[in-house]
Amino acid sequence: MDISLELIKEIARPSPTKIVLLVIDGLGGLPNPETGKTELETANTPYLDQLATKGICGLIDLVAPGITPGSSPGHLALFGYDPIRFNIGRGVLEAIGIDFDLQPGDVAARGNFCTVDKAGRITDRRAGRISTDKCAELCQLLDGLVIDNIKISVCPVREHRFVVVFRGDNLVPSLSDSDPQQVGVAPKAVTALSPEAGRAASIANQFIARAQAILAEHHPANMALLRGFSRRPHFPSMGEVYKLRPAAIASYPMYRGLAKLIGMEILETGTTIEDELATLKQNYADYDFFFLHIKGTDSAGEDGDLDRKVSIIEQVDNALSKLISMEPDVIVVTGDHSTPVLLRAHSWHPVPILLYSKWCRPDKVNEFSESACLSGGLGRFPATQVMPLAMANALKLTKFGA
Amino acid sequence: MDISLELIKEIARPSPTKIVLLVIDGLGGLPNPETGKTELETANTPYLDQLATKGICGLIDLVAPGITPGSSPGHLALFGYDPIRFNIGRGVLEAIGIDFDLQPGDVAARGNFCTVDKAGRITDRRAGRISTDKCAELCQLLDGLVIDNIKISVCPVREHRFVVVFRGDNLVPSLSDSDPQQVGVAPKAVTALSPEAGRAASIANQFIARAQAILAEHHPANMALLRGFSRRPHFPSMGEVYKLRPAAIASYPMYRGLAKLIGMEILETGTTIEDELATLKQNYADYDFFFLHIKGTDSAGEDGDLDRKVSIIEQVDNALSKLISMEPDVIVVTGDHSTPVLLRAHSWHPVPILLYSKWCRPDKVNEFSESACLSGGLGRFPATQVMPLAMANALKLTKFGA
Repeated sequence: MDISLELIKEIARPSPTKIVLLVIDGLGGLPNPETGKTELETANTPYLDQLATKGICGLIDLVAPGITPGSSPGHLALFGYDPIRFNIGRGVLEAIGIDFDLQPGDVAARGNFCTVDKAGRITDRRAGRISTDKCAELCQLLDGLVIDNIKISVCPVREHRFVVVFRGDNLVPSLSDSDPQQVGVAPKAVTALSPEAGRAASIANQFIARAQAILAEHHPANMALLRGFSRRPHFPSMGEVYKLRPAAIASYPMYRGLAKLIGMEILETGTTIEDELATLKQNYADYDFFFLHIKGTDSAGEDGDLDRKVSIIEQVDNALSKLISMEPDVIVVTGDHSTPVLLRAHSWHPVPILLYSKWCRPDKVNEFSESACLSGGLGRFPATQVMPLAMANALKLTKFGA
Repeated sequence: MDISLELIKEIARPSPTKIVLLVIDGLGGLPNPETGKTELETANTPYLDQLATKGICGLIDLVAPGITPGSSPGHLALFGYDPIRFNIGRGVLEAIGIDFDLQPGDVAARGNFCTVDKAGRITDRRAGRISTDKCAELCQLLDGLVIDNIKISVCPVREHRFVVVFRGDNLVPSLSDSDPQQVGVAPKAVTALSPEAGRAASIANQFIARAQAILAEHHPANMALLRGFSRRPHFPSMGEVYKLRPAAIASYPMYRGLAKLIGMEILETGTTIEDELATLKQNYADYDFFFLHIKGTDSAGEDGDLDRKVSIIEQVDNALSKLISMEPDVIVVTGDHSTPVLLRAHSWHPVPILLYSKWCRPDKVNEFSESACLSGGLGRFPATQVMPLAMANALKLTKFGA
């Protein structure tokens, strides 16, 4: 019995109560072989433990048991959007990741600078991982081309990665990749996967030909591969679905972009946790839903840096006193996936969650940790149910049926 | 958020890690009124308890809470195939159960020898449950008929049950049953349920008429009823979906047949648990997924034999030391359904499961039993999630989405 956004939309009602969703990226971990404790269990977290004691805890699966979520599906699930149904194309994701202001008709693609030999066969799909500076320099050579009234923007991402955005009329993104995802063969021609996409395919191929000519003398980055042609999807906005005025406080562009895609207001903030809380305080009166994003825990996990992950969790905990003093009606603390230091990567392990509100039915958990959350009152559940739970605890949902 | 095989196929990647799935048929039980302990709780199982301590435990529902699984849906679910979506026709199931080598165009049906009176009305749908020997004798009389270039095989199953397989060109299995599933009425004519099935219907009816003539003097088995006409289904293979080289070690034909249906390699083995483990050891280098099937627990449960079921569980436990010494990356131990001695039948009760891997997040369960698994870290979950979890723990799944 999946609860759809349509159903939530019918029973959601506006109210002055406030919800804060604090996402600690990559929060979940694995027990260290020496101590038997996860990163979260190692950290000293008096405020999180206090919220766990007064609130209700559990564990969430972002996509499904065993499935390791990317950042985008992990966050969509937390916002209540089924990450399998609400799919975002690769090109759009990359554009969002660099804060590119995508317009509704734009077609975006992910690009790789690559190396081809004299016969035109790919010898390195990543052009020896050229530096980000070199990438920016090459993007400048390609940026701003106009082909058949279509304006083409080319923006660097990192190393060999870039984004191309095609802007103009009648562009349909159902296009095959030019990237064959293997070496030893030539890049493929982009083909239209639906009759209406013919014009877009022709423009993409003309762009690739121009890029090849321009890049010819820039070995190893002497060719460009494109994939994941896509348009900004039309997702129902959080305002419509939940009757909320939602705001996002995030220092990384990717998360701001995702939040914008579902209609959140993006608040300018700084790079530290304290900056994010100051932004929250300044804007507290103007919104009734805040998404706060902490990136450092995920990066520390990916770097395999136990001490840093623990230390960032402790900084977040310390900053929580300010959040608690604002007295939001509902506080949810969780992550968008696990990033165990031992694995140095995102993982499939379920993520601890705590929900505090005056109306939660508290359990006996008095510590915010993977093992304590296992016996929490929320049990283990899909992350798409987090928003309905937060809304209910903020008394923002009327009853279903008579 | 249902995870489809299509999604798994996209994120699965080949790797040298190895998974062993040990299915103890009918494992789950009910507490004995005198001891308060289930069959598994009564057994002395030091190795299972050791794996439970190091691993993560839970309880699975094979089909859904309250639904008692047959052996086929129970196993399909464990292999990750939604047993409601992936349906196998009755005729095919019976053919698989006797190791009949079904070819893609074959149409199989389940047969009953039955008794009809002089007016042709059924008086006993099971012909007084004739012996299996008698059944074999009668099948020989019908086996090998050729009607309109269709070769017909008739093979005994048990008591009054047999299988008919029609082999030849242009056979479409959308046919109604001749078995009316009640006494006092005549067998029904087989009718084509789609226009293309006309030829198959005609051949089935001609076969039934020939059978009636041949059986006339063999009262009480003087007629044959057919039902469940079906063709071998085309399920995606485990190799394709999971990028695995899977092998099955099972002494009963039914389980070998099911495994073959989804593309597992069938390894020749003996009838004891030790035989199965010796087969595993011999073939350990050549595959990366092993399905080991233990039948005795289910048979003992159906016979209501507590001591035998306990003793077989203890034999399995004892044999586990050999499995553990091979050091597979992932070991999963569970059952395909419960068969409580007290019920003498398959039941709907969820089945304990343990998963051991270097990357599992261990829980506090230190005993493999129904009651201990209740507080396990895997929680209670659908059996179709077992394979994604095993794959994740073997680091054979890449992340979903960016």
